[in-house]
Amino acid sequence: MELISSNKTFGGHLNKYRHASSVVACEMTFSVFLPAQADVGVRLPVLYWLAGLTGNEDTFVQKAGALRVAADLGLIIVAPDTSPRGSEVPDSAPEEWAWGQSAGFYVNATEKPWSDHYNMYDYVVNELPGLIDRHFPTSGRCGISGHSMGGHGALVCALRNPQKYLSISAFEPICNPARTPWGIQAFSGYLGADRQSWLSWDASELLASCQSNLSILVEFGGADEYLDEELKPCTLLGAISNSRCELEIRVRQGYDHSHYFIASFIEDHLRYHYKKLVSSTL
Amino acid sequence: MELISSNKTFGGHLNKYRHASSVVACEMTFSVFLPAQADVGVRLPVLYWLAGLTGNEDTFVQKAGALRVAADLGLIIVAPDTSPRGSEVPDSAPEEWAWGQSAGFYVNATEKPWSDHYNMYDYVVNELPGLIDRHFPTSGRCGISGHSMGGHGALVCALRNPQKYLSISAFEPICNPARTPWGIQAFSGYLGADRQSWLSWDASELLASCQSNLSILVEFGGADEYLDEELKPCTLLGAISNSRCELEIRVRQGYDHSHYFIASFIEDHLRYHYKKLVSSTL
Repeated sequence: MELISSNKTFGGHLNKYRHASSVVACEMTFSVFLPAQADVGVRLPVLYWLAGLTGNEDTFVQKAGALRVAADLGLIIVAPDTSPRGSEVPDSAPEEWAWGQSAGFYVNATEKPWSDHYNMYDYVVNELPGLIDRHFPTSGRCGISGHSMGGHGALVCALRNPQKYLSISAFEPICNPARTPWGIQAFSGYLGADRQSWLSWDASELLASCQSNLSILVEFGGADEYLDEELKPCTLLGAISNSRCELEIRVRQGYDHSHYFIASFIEDHLRYHYKKLVSSTL
Repeated sequence: MELISSNKTFGGHLNKYRHASSVVACEMTFSVFLPAQADVGVRLPVLYWLAGLTGNEDTFVQKAGALRVAADLGLIIVAPDTSPRGSEVPDSAPEEWAWGQSAGFYVNATEKPWSDHYNMYDYVVNELPGLIDRHFPTSGRCGISGHSMGGHGALVCALRNPQKYLSISAFEPICNPARTPWGIQAFSGYLGADRQSWLSWDASELLASCQSNLSILVEFGGADEYLDEELKPCTLLGAISNSRCELEIRVRQGYDHSHYFIASFIEDHLRYHYKKLVSSTL
């Protein structure tokens, strides 16, 4: 694991690392914010943040204004890239930005040649946390959140691993990717033509059958230009009746799909995560 | 003036506009944050923020985490671009990023062909504020700040117009551009070979002869990689003894030249500006 940059900020450090990933079979970069509390031997909770389409490991840490709050709380933030990358990694056609490089959709691909690299689910859920827990003073307690494609990723990772994440939230997630355009394009490529196989990567489907009592916080902008066609909050809401989960959906009038929305409400989410991370029983 | 984007954030709006500028003779874009207080007929103070080399009208509003505080205070923030732009605007060689497009240095050029467009001083001090005061509910009280080349710009604009700006600060400004490499390159191009003419665009020179009682707040990172060669805080400090100005220079240990530093201390600066803007006598 190689440190490629380090910036002091809010008394802590925002570090970027490069490492060889075995599950996605290429070099990966991620950002980690280490609050000042990490320097004095305290073991801290971790929030994994998954970025959206066209994003990378910089997007959230640069644009969301989250590090101020994480520094105050003593919360480690880990922001991975959104896909495997590099000349050896297959990519979609340039105009198809909803899948391929920078759009891994946090699944494990089953179709060749994508399945050689596009295993972002395994990367986010297993390989990366292993690395984080080995190198940083983590408490063993972690939560997950993300935006848009990353909100989908956060919900899917949490619903498939109800014991792993003690706090779960999402901003403007793609709630039903098996039936909406970006998701259909990505799943067709990564998972193939059998749409039944897609359902285990769809938050609404997973929620409908979830028998754990998870709590999920989801935030939408009422002026989000993708709300009706791509995000479908109603599908997520409709899935709750069969599950044992708690779901809180907030809609903020006038806000769109940009990071200006995330920045406006990230403090709420970070405090929500932190409270669960320090107080929940494992 | 054409609205090209509007994002709701922190209860207010971050708008971007395009307009034809007469002083720089091309189309210019700028960002303006209008807090919610602007919607209810209250007249608000304005902070002009000048970005650094390679920046534009997005840099500060996306990366500094300033809008949260501006929303809380009720402060309009105006962030112009860093130079004239476009195919009709002359540019430096691609490897010379310290002058030319995205590096206007907030001077009025005197050398052809630069002087046809590179009049960013007049743009920032006169044309843009005229536009802002005509279109938005401003109180007529304004302050100025900026980063690096923009910190230089803020100090020079304020020192040349001691009646205009009621609050003045800078992050990591280029304090003595007439004698440091980036400044020498830019001033040689824009202002020509007569180095005497450069001194009226140099904050340290202007401060040394300033007979107004201005207060100036300047913030540096102790690990700023450009501190000794390009920024020269000691030159600014050395100039204070002949002037009637008050100068506060803070050095924050371990912080570098990035926006992660600005984000860490922008709240202090915004509250400093706001206090002066609402309480100073004109």
